[in-house]
Amino acid sequence: MNSPAIILVRPQMGENIGAAARAMLNFGLDHMRIVDPRDGWPNERAVALASGAGRVLDTAMVRDTLGEVCADLNYVFATTARSRDLTKPVMTPERAMQHARALSAQGLKVGVMFGPERAGLENEDVIRADALITVPVNPDFASLNLAQCVLLTAYEWRRQDADIPPEVLELAGARLAEGGEVEHLLDRLVKALDARRFFWPEHKAASMQASLRNMFHRLPLTETDTRTLHGVVRHLAERTPKD
Amino acid sequence: MNSPAIILVRPQMGENIGAAARAMLNFGLDHMRIVDPRDGWPNERAVALASGAGRVLDTAMVRDTLGEVCADLNYVFATTARSRDLTKPVMTPERAMQHARALSAQGLKVGVMFGPERAGLENEDVIRADALITVPVNPDFASLNLAQCVLLTAYEWRRQDADIPPEVLELAGARLAEGGEVEHLLDRLVKALDARRFFWPEHKAASMQASLRNMFHRLPLTETDTRTLHGVVRHLAERTPKD
Repeated sequence: MNSPAIILVRPQMGENIGAAARAMLNFGLDHMRIVDPRDGWPNERAVALASGAGRVLDTAMVRDTLGEVCADLNYVFATTARSRDLTKPVMTPERAMQHARALSAQGLKVGVMFGPERAGLENEDVIRADALITVPVNPDFASLNLAQCVLLTAYEWRRQDADIPPEVLELAGARLAEGGEVEHLLDRLVKALDARRFFWPEHKAASMQASLRNMFHRLPLTETDTRTLHGVVRHLAERTPKD
Repeated sequence: MNSPAIILVRPQMGENIGAAARAMLNFGLDHMRIVDPRDGWPNERAVALASGAGRVLDTAMVRDTLGEVCADLNYVFATTARSRDLTKPVMTPERAMQHARALSAQGLKVGVMFGPERAGLENEDVIRADALITVPVNPDFASLNLAQCVLLTAYEWRRQDADIPPEVLELAGARLAEGGEVEHLLDRLVKALDARRFFWPEHKAASMQASLRNMFHRLPLTETDTRTLHGVVRHLAERTPKD
């Protein structure tokens, strides 16, 4: 699947081009296009800031006009911070990257334009876009810079990768306890507590045991944990503190 | 609803504390906690970098130990770049902020810890967490800095706000055309084309018209667009170029 091209339109600071390259590669995007960079090309400051992501700069397409970098793209998004006096669909980064994935899955080529640091895209640039992306920032404080906008777009592209599990239990070599292992631990614990008259008064004993059993079955204990707790119970029950 | 506390554990550079404050406020988080900042507190560099987000620093809780800042929190996440030798649930930022929203909706207090810039959280810190957050970066290039990690977490918190529509059509004062307005335009267009024998050969005329009609109904035309196109058709059909 083609990943989207990240199009920097008239970027000013080489540092920001380098930071954008890093942000892209962090989330697996490596296809950069640059329109009319202020300080020419190649740019030493960009290379210095990109460090490990230098290959994104090495393979970037650099052209004088937006028309040239968009010529082979089937669908182009423009990122804008403010509303424009233009009729266009406006999408969140989430919806935009959903759409980009759907188009890419059909073999189509997608691009996302980002404007110059100070003023953003001109309306003339935005007119070329099929749709706009606006990041849902706090309306009372919106200060995203160029590399941060690229980062959030690239993050959204990767976030929607179905192969990334939303949650796993990291077991560090252990395995989750089996029901029988938890029951075995509970039997020891209940027996030790019962011998010390923990389940009292009598008429509450059954519900107290049920709560205790429920708690231990609810906790995500590993087999190692149950063995540790066997030792804890045995020591508490059998040994008397020395002091 | 309480928003999560962002906990910076032993942060080193004031600049990064300031940048983290900005990243938080961009997505509406304003509850920062700081454990044992390397350069003391308050920190001039942090204030300088935070600029408009200075109030996040002004109201930050600053303490010597992680225990103190976590004492009133019901659920704490630890962000880690690498796998730890500890049994813990590991979540994507997306799943973690879903969980944080569910807990906050019950009135519970949630925190997210971020480690020092160079080495990240110590295992001793991580042990205090209920779950880990790992950003799904490109395994071949993972270079997120502290403020970027905070930015992505804050973005996820806000992204899941149900009040943010994923897509709108920005109409710039116009309104979408009614079906009748599109039909009226099509009638004029078809009549003008028919007079110039566009629909030819005869046996294809019906399907050519159907395609044309389908195209215009598929386009998201505004009422203003239909009036513009009426003028375009009329001029093309009635005027002869002068040159």
